[in-house]
Amino acid sequence: MWERLRDKRLADKIVTAEVAAGWIEDGMTIGLSGFTRAGDAKVVPLALAELTKKENKPFGVNVYTGASLGSDVDAVMAEAGIINKRLPFQADPVMRKKINDGSMMFVDQHLSHTAEAIRQGAIDAIDYAIVEAVAITEEGMIIPATSVGNSNIFVENAKHVIIELNMAQSVELEGIHDIYTPAMQGEREPIPLTSVDQRMGTAGIPVDPNKVKGIVLTNQLDSPSTIVEPDEETAQIAAHLIEFLRQEVKEGRLPNNLAPLQSGIGSVANAVFNGFLDSEFTDLTVFSEVLQDAVFDLLDAGKISFASGCSITLTADKMKHVTDNFAQYRDKLLLRPQEISNHPELIRRLGLIAINTAIEADIYGNVNSTNVSGTRMMNGIGGSGDFARNARLGIFVTKSIAKGGNISSIVPFASHVDHTEHDVDIIVTEQGLADLRGLAPRQRAIKIIENCAHPMYRDQLMAYYEEALTRGGHTPHVLEKAFSWHVRYAQEGTMLAKKPALV
Amino acid sequence: MWERLRDKRLADKIVTAEVAAGWIEDGMTIGLSGFTRAGDAKVVPLALAELTKKENKPFGVNVYTGASLGSDVDAVMAEAGIINKRLPFQADPVMRKKINDGSMMFVDQHLSHTAEAIRQGAIDAIDYAIVEAVAITEEGMIIPATSVGNSNIFVENAKHVIIELNMAQSVELEGIHDIYTPAMQGEREPIPLTSVDQRMGTAGIPVDPNKVKGIVLTNQLDSPSTIVEPDEETAQIAAHLIEFLRQEVKEGRLPNNLAPLQSGIGSVANAVFNGFLDSEFTDLTVFSEVLQDAVFDLLDAGKISFASGCSITLTADKMKHVTDNFAQYRDKLLLRPQEISNHPELIRRLGLIAINTAIEADIYGNVNSTNVSGTRMMNGIGGSGDFARNARLGIFVTKSIAKGGNISSIVPFASHVDHTEHDVDIIVTEQGLADLRGLAPRQRAIKIIENCAHPMYRDQLMAYYEEALTRGGHTPHVLEKAFSWHVRYAQEGTMLAKKPALV
Repeated sequence: MWERLRDKRLADKIVTAEVAAGWIEDGMTIGLSGFTRAGDAKVVPLALAELTKKENKPFGVNVYTGASLGSDVDAVMAEAGIINKRLPFQADPVMRKKINDGSMMFVDQHLSHTAEAIRQGAIDAIDYAIVEAVAITEEGMIIPATSVGNSNIFVENAKHVIIELNMAQSVELEGIHDIYTPAMQGEREPIPLTSVDQRMGTAGIPVDPNKVKGIVLTNQLDSPSTIVEPDEETAQIAAHLIEFLRQEVKEGRLPNNLAPLQSGIGSVANAVFNGFLDSEFTDLTVFSEVLQDAVFDLLDAGKISFASGCSITLTADKMKHVTDNFAQYRDKLLLRPQEISNHPELIRRLGLIAINTAIEADIYGNVNSTNVSGTRMMNGIGGSGDFARNARLGIFVTKSIAKGGNISSIVPFASHVDHTEHDVDIIVTEQGLADLRGLAPRQRAIKIIENCAHPMYRDQLMAYYEEALTRGGHTPHVLEKAFSWHVRYAQEGTMLAKKPALV
Repeated sequence: MWERLRDKRLADKIVTAEVAAGWIEDGMTIGLSGFTRAGDAKVVPLALAELTKKENKPFGVNVYTGASLGSDVDAVMAEAGIINKRLPFQADPVMRKKINDGSMMFVDQHLSHTAEAIRQGAIDAIDYAIVEAVAITEEGMIIPATSVGNSNIFVENAKHVIIELNMAQSVELEGIHDIYTPAMQGEREPIPLTSVDQRMGTAGIPVDPNKVKGIVLTNQLDSPSTIVEPDEETAQIAAHLIEFLRQEVKEGRLPNNLAPLQSGIGSVANAVFNGFLDSEFTDLTVFSEVLQDAVFDLLDAGKISFASGCSITLTADKMKHVTDNFAQYRDKLLLRPQEISNHPELIRRLGLIAINTAIEADIYGNVNSTNVSGTRMMNGIGGSGDFARNARLGIFVTKSIAKGGNISSIVPFASHVDHTEHDVDIIVTEQGLADLRGLAPRQRAIKIIENCAHPMYRDQLMAYYEEALTRGGHTPHVLEKAFSWHVRYAQEGTMLAKKPALV
């Protein structure tokens, strides 16, 4: 243990999870480490849920995180009903249910924005930061585990800090973090980063030892990623996108090794990255949030030369492989705070190719990433807005249909808009790719319907668009029918119209 | 003239507007200087329209600008039917009609994005840049007039350059420009700006003299701004906003001199700036696009210490006053390219307070800035997205009703979304202010309805929201009624429902 807890001033701070949980009071705000299941605080939040159950008193806290948590923390806390407000992202079915029945308030933020909101005091101040570490250095610096997320800003701004020192996380992770925190707005220097592999900060999170209230020893791996294997459709999406990038290189708009790649979380985005395995592209770089399985496959294949992210989220097998062979990855990886991995300044400067998943897109290219049928929260916008708006290429991918064809992912009007027509350059489905750059809405509509919509919905989309054209306008619509597809799905279980009434 | 045309290598390039217009061929792309009526190319575009009328052959060009033009250029070119595609912003009634009847393609872009699209080759390459200048220096540098806009990127990327040397624009403008152009993405350094008054670039636009195909002498002032005086409602909007900022200072979230201010174009935003005249705030700074009348009133009153923009757009009287007294403004002003005035990197670093106008906002805080009733283009998104997303405070202002109360600016569902709930911090109407920071959608709805909606629509909004609650969801909606207000307005001329059926 002492090779992990190297700051001897903190030796007497070791407590049990139950003791630490007991410090947290009703009405407080806590900041938990963790970004897409990686590097999350694993035991204190669960002990807190347990404790409140025992005490059986009304209890509620605000919970800030990096992104989604693993270890059933979100499920257990939501189930216990002890979360007043949660931000900025989640991906848990139990929590999702609570959010959608209105019993839990969820604030869906751009993942680069949370740190600014905390720094400005625009949201409730943090009482306790609870962050996982693989080590605490001689100087009292917290070495995060498999994610940085918002941990640095939580630690910096919290009144008290609780560290979960996790013996199960590899000590070899020490050295892959680069912690850089911007100053207050108005007193800030340019962020010096100009290449994906550049170090700017410290190897860990500096913390005032007097703020460290307790250290809890843990011994538990991250929850593995539940990503599903690429299928025929996601492979087709990857193929369309890679062919497009090939043409961009041919026409001189991209260099041979493209530009730093970003990919959203999930199976579709992972499959797209997998597509690069069989491509001619080499010397690729990644500047992303989550480094998923495919990034390590591409590192293994010598396709990627460097990957920068703010978390590493892997399936169980891949996690074992990476941990067992960490030496071969160490010099090709950096983990940064999510404020940096997702910073508009850096995304625009580096000129990323940003690939994110849409729930649905409309005929003009507005994208819904969050609310199913405009109302029911899935996970949250995550970093997709940070990336799409500022990237060289803002690309959204989705299968053209869902629920066996009863849902079309291309609709007349997006039932919730997270990414506006101004931010969406490219839409790709298994049907094809629509390059929307420099097109007016009426041109975009034709291209999206013809290239991206599933054949079973194309006539129906064209019928809507043609009726809309009779009304006129820059962005023609038939407002009384704009959501008729979503309403039909709710009432009849399908978006498909009965012929001959197509709309 | 020779004190304005100081590069003698260009002496034999002087031509008439008609000759210059004759160089432009069917199918070409031209880039015109001009940003909100200021510093626009005034005679060659009109000569081109005249010429094509005479020749009576099918003719069409793509027209890129900074933003809207004055001098009837947009009206005349649209009327002549010679524009195939226009970007990134316009504000002319004749052009608007052509856009909305589908006879002219309009690409509505974030004003900071156009330069990147040109640099990347993502949109058609520019054949002719036609830019206004007050002088051409000994070294062949173009000194812009009252705007920089996209002129630098047009000149840099065009095959040929035509300069309109305007004798009517004050030579005293020389010295207030700071031209800085980022390198290609991926080869770019951080933009070094850390304060609003910082100079980074050159005093004019460098140009290869071999690319200068012609110089046309002109003698015509900018079209004056048509801004209307503050009225009772806009004064109330200003008062609510200033009271809010006062509280932010009191609670330590803003310094006494606030943060650099940005304001959108138009009468409401101008009125809000006017509100600072009678406030206690001093030593204010401005980092904005257009510097309107109110900025100069605030400079005169000693309230603003420095103002950075990309254009100066004034009413006729104010234009005369500023020109006659330019010495007193010279050291307090800088005009930059719109890529810089609107750059996410700088907006976020400086932590702006961004104030922009909404056409409508919905109960969850999504904002429509462009498409009336979701379909008919007004002007374009302009810089509002650049600013709102990246600012410290993303503020939208609007009167709560329009058309004598037949339109509510607060609606159940925004009929076009330009700014998502993730980007809108504050909404202000004459009724009051809704601070949405850190609120979940259900909390935002109550606050917007209670604080911002007009009393005549409040019950109707609550009735919609309450019916939506019965359906559940993170963002409750009744999709089949979401646009019923817009449909009712189209059919009955009012959004007001007949009682007792409130929705």
